[in-house]
Amino acid sequence: MSIESQPVSILPVSECWDLLSSVALGRLVTSVDGQPEVFPVNFTVQHRTVLFRTAEGTKLVSAMINNNVLFEADDHNVAEGWSVIVKGSARTLRTDDEIAEAERAQLLPWTGTAKQHYVRIKPLSVTGRRFVFGGGA
Amino acid sequence: MSIESQPVSILPVSECWDLLSSVALGRLVTSVDGQPEVFPVNFTVQHRTVLFRTAEGTKLVSAMINNNVLFEADDHNVAEGWSVIVKGSARTLRTDDEIAEAERAQLLPWTGTAKQHYVRIKPLSVTGRRFVFGGGA
Repeated sequence: MSIESQPVSILPVSECWDLLSSVALGRLVTSVDGQPEVFPVNFTVQHRTVLFRTAEGTKLVSAMINNNVLFEADDHNVAEGWSVIVKGSARTLRTDDEIAEAERAQLLPWTGTAKQHYVRIKPLSVTGRRFVFGGGA
Repeated sequence: MSIESQPVSILPVSECWDLLSSVALGRLVTSVDGQPEVFPVNFTVQHRTVLFRTAEGTKLVSAMINNNVLFEADDHNVAEGWSVIVKGSARTLRTDDEIAEAERAQLLPWTGTAKQHYVRIKPLSVTGRRFVFGGGA
């Protein structure tokens, strides 16, 4: 069942950010040579932006260069769920100030050996929907 | 943290389908006029295809016409997670036989008033990864 065809309520932007802040796994969606790509990422919300880390040289990083992106997160139980989609621009953080600010976010510590980059998605639009499953009521 | 930069294991296709079968909510990703779009959908697996319903005339349906799609589903707990991505072709089911077969799947019953269409995604490729969070171990 597409969520579009279910009983749906549109969420205020403030609630969208609260919901995004309540989960840790989201999905970055980009278009590479006209083909969509989707990348699950472990993220956090900071100052109404989406922040995550990725390793240097990954397909994900190259997919985001000069690219507007979508970011989706959702959660649900057996009865209902929500989905929030952020349209925005993604940028790798470069300056010491930018990286210091990102370090203050609540991203999980990470001990991987690959050099890590922070990526921040600044929103152009944020849309959220709450929906119920089943419809038998 | 991008999953690409985490300790990751690539999953066999059979396990990908088992994992897809274990969850009910996934995300359809399409490209519309070169821009990616993402639609959460309530789905089921039938004969190694992804099956869901949507209402007539929705943005989702128009997005899928003549379009290859991605379908992503994932699940996680605090320690680990998995993500499976199906690349395939989506098609609205039209014939009585097609619809009868779809009716035998375990999609949730639905009492919405909008006319419903079944959509089936036939896979061209299926990739799955299992990953661990934190990396502190």
